[in-house]
Amino acid sequence: MDKVLGIDIGGTSIKVGMFSTEGELQAATKIPTGEITSEAAFAVVTEGLKKLLEDNGFGPQDVIAVGLDVPGPVDDNGKVGMLANIELDTDGLQATIKRTFPRANLAFVNDANAAALGELWQGSAKDVNSFVLIAIGTGVGGGVVSGGKIISGAVGAGGEIGHITVNRDETASCGCGRKGCLEQYASASGIVRTYKQECAKLGTKPVKLDGPTDTLSVFTACRAGDEAAQKAISVMCDCLGFAMAQMSAIIDPQIYLIGGGVGGGFNMFADELRASFRKYCLAPCASTRILPASLGNDAAMYGSAFQAMNS
Amino acid sequence: MDKVLGIDIGGTSIKVGMFSTEGELQAATKIPTGEITSEAAFAVVTEGLKKLLEDNGFGPQDVIAVGLDVPGPVDDNGKVGMLANIELDTDGLQATIKRTFPRANLAFVNDANAAALGELWQGSAKDVNSFVLIAIGTGVGGGVVSGGKIISGAVGAGGEIGHITVNRDETASCGCGRKGCLEQYASASGIVRTYKQECAKLGTKPVKLDGPTDTLSVFTACRAGDEAAQKAISVMCDCLGFAMAQMSAIIDPQIYLIGGGVGGGFNMFADELRASFRKYCLAPCASTRILPASLGNDAAMYGSAFQAMNS
Repeated sequence: MDKVLGIDIGGTSIKVGMFSTEGELQAATKIPTGEITSEAAFAVVTEGLKKLLEDNGFGPQDVIAVGLDVPGPVDDNGKVGMLANIELDTDGLQATIKRTFPRANLAFVNDANAAALGELWQGSAKDVNSFVLIAIGTGVGGGVVSGGKIISGAVGAGGEIGHITVNRDETASCGCGRKGCLEQYASASGIVRTYKQECAKLGTKPVKLDGPTDTLSVFTACRAGDEAAQKAISVMCDCLGFAMAQMSAIIDPQIYLIGGGVGGGFNMFADELRASFRKYCLAPCASTRILPASLGNDAAMYGSAFQAMNS
Repeated sequence: MDKVLGIDIGGTSIKVGMFSTEGELQAATKIPTGEITSEAAFAVVTEGLKKLLEDNGFGPQDVIAVGLDVPGPVDDNGKVGMLANIELDTDGLQATIKRTFPRANLAFVNDANAAALGELWQGSAKDVNSFVLIAIGTGVGGGVVSGGKIISGAVGAGGEIGHITVNRDETASCGCGRKGCLEQYASASGIVRTYKQECAKLGTKPVKLDGPTDTLSVFTACRAGDEAAQKAISVMCDCLGFAMAQMSAIIDPQIYLIGGGVGGGFNMFADELRASFRKYCLAPCASTRILPASLGNDAAMYGSAFQAMNS
């Protein structure tokens, strides 16, 4: 029976889903890995994949496609660029997977692009032809879908919407080396940064934070009426709505999906975000819908499977 | 012999090209029209089209596709939105053309999008899979091509790149009602506006201008060393390079093409524009090429024919 594997590659482990070709997630597992740069490490991956199949009554010959999402650029031709945050030998892993699953088509996908494709296949964007997934986590990633296809870009920079410039007056630098990027205000670390700045301005004491990306505490503080926390979320909505208005003047998608860890708090900021978008967008775009993503942390696993099956 | 007609609809006349299916422009004509809102006006159009065919030894039965570009929004489904600047009954014209050319597939295309498709078919973007055409004329229009397809957008706002916000501090309003749009600095009227402002700042007398969009005189003054004219062109390059950097972070095209009337002066500002783009873009996008469009005023005629043949 034809199966498709979707593999979400993280820094210390990989998450694997076994899908039917219709997009049903039939089994999943997590395989501890560490660096994936040696034959031994490649074997840990493929043994884990084979075990997942065997535990469910299938074998390597059933696998028609294997998709892998990576935290870094993948261009329009599927070529993986520099991966700054994980140790992964993509060529070596690809060769081992090809040997193990001789029938399978392989594809690498950028993680945010994979999440968008997952939402297209089985999530909030099912039957939607054009949309942008905005993944708000430690950073701000994005996946741009047009005509049912992801726009990866000539050098894999498609969907790098965290680096849309929203404030030309910013003096602090973004991780990319530029200044005033969306990510500096709308990511988890951006929200916490603004919260602390607002507390300093107001002369109030910040709530206890569990690290530099603890937006959960900022959201909780906001619910409890903390003025600085409310301001931090307003700044996020202002910057994100502004960036979305720029996207609409370029690609005019049918909907925007908000995902990622911070996206889990969607209901708390949805009204303010929608108002911000409408304030900044071209008049005809004002009816564009802004919705929550629905597949959570599994989105990229779905999407990498989908891309491998369709490329 | 199969023929394709491309029709560029203007305010007082239409321009028609007769193409082979391979994209060779074999004959062209201009038909004076005025308002195209009555059966009599529709007949003027179709009689003109038939005459063009007959003069070249063909007839209505040879026409397999008719494309029409309009100065207004056309959405992803080919539906024409509000046309602010011309009097055109699209439904009526469409019905008359369908009766006259029973074999033909019909398509409406936004004019800047049509120009992009023209460049894709027979111009500077031949064999280029993803690019943005930036048409600099009275306004700033755009056509975004990805995977060889135009991105028209959910409400036809795809490619409305003249309305990317480049200056959040602007106090003057754009035609769209918003403030700080690219068009306010990089269009013909924007360049002339900046030139006059700079003359006022410097206390110099502007050169004689033939109306509010006479960039030719500003360009000539620039070549002669006029400081205010140089500044106006620098502002245009700064704003355009900034807007292109935003586009690259969203769709990361292979190339940018500069077209439209002001695009004719490409060689004069190309170096400054390239430097501006590189200053603002994400590092991996710095090698994206910026080139002149090559079909001039015929681009939209080519592109509407192409779209009708391929939709």
